[in-house]
Amino acid sequence: MAKLSLDEAWTLSVNLLEGNGFAAAHAEAIARSVVAAQRDECHSHGLYRLIDCVRTLKQGGVEPNAVPEIIDQAPSVVRVDAKSGSSLLAFEYGRHHLVEKTRASGVAILAVNNAFHFSALWPEVEALAEQGLVSLAMTPSHAYVAPAGGDSPLLGTNPIAFSWPRPEGPPFTFDFATSVVARGEVELHRRAGKSLPAGWALDNNGQPTTDPTDALAGALLPFGGHKGSALSIMIELLAGPLIGDQLGHQTRPADGSREGGPQHGEFILAIDPARLLGPEAEARLAQAEVLFEGIIDQGARLPSQRRHEARRRSQLEGVEIPAELYQELAELMNG
Amino acid sequence: MAKLSLDEAWTLSVNLLEGNGFAAAHAEAIARSVVAAQRDECHSHGLYRLIDCVRTLKQGGVEPNAVPEIIDQAPSVVRVDAKSGSSLLAFEYGRHHLVEKTRASGVAILAVNNAFHFSALWPEVEALAEQGLVSLAMTPSHAYVAPAGGDSPLLGTNPIAFSWPRPEGPPFTFDFATSVVARGEVELHRRAGKSLPAGWALDNNGQPTTDPTDALAGALLPFGGHKGSALSIMIELLAGPLIGDQLGHQTRPADGSREGGPQHGEFILAIDPARLLGPEAEARLAQAEVLFEGIIDQGARLPSQRRHEARRRSQLEGVEIPAELYQELAELMNG
Repeated sequence: MAKLSLDEAWTLSVNLLEGNGFAAAHAEAIARSVVAAQRDECHSHGLYRLIDCVRTLKQGGVEPNAVPEIIDQAPSVVRVDAKSGSSLLAFEYGRHHLVEKTRASGVAILAVNNAFHFSALWPEVEALAEQGLVSLAMTPSHAYVAPAGGDSPLLGTNPIAFSWPRPEGPPFTFDFATSVVARGEVELHRRAGKSLPAGWALDNNGQPTTDPTDALAGALLPFGGHKGSALSIMIELLAGPLIGDQLGHQTRPADGSREGGPQHGEFILAIDPARLLGPEAEARLAQAEVLFEGIIDQGARLPSQRRHEARRRSQLEGVEIPAELYQELAELMNG
Repeated sequence: MAKLSLDEAWTLSVNLLEGNGFAAAHAEAIARSVVAAQRDECHSHGLYRLIDCVRTLKQGGVEPNAVPEIIDQAPSVVRVDAKSGSSLLAFEYGRHHLVEKTRASGVAILAVNNAFHFSALWPEVEALAEQGLVSLAMTPSHAYVAPAGGDSPLLGTNPIAFSWPRPEGPPFTFDFATSVVARGEVELHRRAGKSLPAGWALDNNGQPTTDPTDALAGALLPFGGHKGSALSIMIELLAGPLIGDQLGHQTRPADGSREGGPQHGEFILAIDPARLLGPEAEARLAQAEVLFEGIIDQGARLPSQRRHEARRRSQLEGVEIPAELYQELAELMNG
């Protein structure tokens, strides 16, 4: 394994992205996200993703110099056109406006459009919670998931993330795909020559399969049957048509063929507890702690608890990545 | 079976509720909800619920003459204090303000507080969608559900409902509990002497059980494992502390013992596609139809499809309820 301090991970990420052609503002926005993921030991969204970013850039799937455009749509709505650039810089451009609107009116929406999206959602909702706001984020992804009762891919893996500010320590946060598992998990089973558990996937005839190769040619299933499927449809509607953007099946991974671009939308909602509750807000947020304590007291984990433990470790000791990944990143750095 | 026209079901419901002491405005708000549920063949929220309503009234769990109070909290937030009355009249009082605020700012919240809540959420979100708004509603319920990885009841069955306006026909709507099944389903298994499927419930030692009696003394599980559990926690936070109201485990069914009242909150969010999208709105809502068609084309059902079919039937032919239920309602009518 290669060991890096968080500063070293940051410098490596920024240099690699800038060296491959991303404008400094994009390189820094992307580096903030991948370093945060690596720090929290979300390996699939960590430094590893730099490889995807550069590949997508080379395939023309992301505009490395895009300057996001802010559209002040309504008193409680701000839109940001990412101009085919990364969603991360678009979020950073829009975030300040979202926070202002939320504080003024109690609730507001940030709609990001035409963005290349490859990152986890939790760093965004957590950043809003650190400013005292409750927030929700959703994005569609390419169509890999069959609706419950269906037989072929139509829905994205459609993640949803939520964050809630806590008086002490990191916010209560979750971020999950509405597919039963990430597509990457199926790929890992395939590489390891292992069967999938029942209930994960359909083959390309719409029949249940435990063969990972058949599953990759077919469809993943939504988590939680028709309930998870309904939730996935909601995410696709809110982060698609509602904000004037694409449905999952209208987008394609950037693979050079350019049949449909990878760009799509992201829907972020923020709510200000101080505006909803006035002077009661502090006492009410303390009441939420009773729920969190009740969960921990019965031996259950809070979502993100593992991630926050990893964060404390990484802040003291830095992060570790496989030596081969470090090697691959070093080679990418030199173009 | 007893057959009633929708008008007869309405008259029966209003008379029964008024006859037992509900003010006319409450009787009508409750009747609108139970008749809509009966019409859509959601039997558990249909005329059957009138019995619960009257029982709760007699046990002092609902204030039959409450006049809801509107609080104009923020530009995009309206609160309604139900004053221990039914949530349904509180919603009707607040709805107009919610719609106005949503049209003005793009997104708004209606927070209902101190309400007796016994109805399905879909009639409320569907009513908002019929006014062209996208909406979401959530409410906690009494603590019957263990968090994923936990061993005892802490979370409510915490339903979530969503509705999306469609150019033709009824809105796209779903409404589901975040428990793997409704508690009523477990009760039905108990009465029928049937075992539960694995994965529904824990006994009061926190061990998985398929015995319905043990399950009723223990806890239901959330749907979809840790993902459904996270969603349930979110619902409890949004419809509880965020709006200055109770957590599920702080409430009790009205059973005469009065140790904790049944009242709690409801969180409703509305979004105006016309305000988000301007002149593009119509074309974007049409794009959503592509997703719905894609779902139906592969043989999957849209959520609420069955309910909307039942609605068409009931509008032509009226509704049927078991003769014993009709008898019980007739007796209740006479006090």
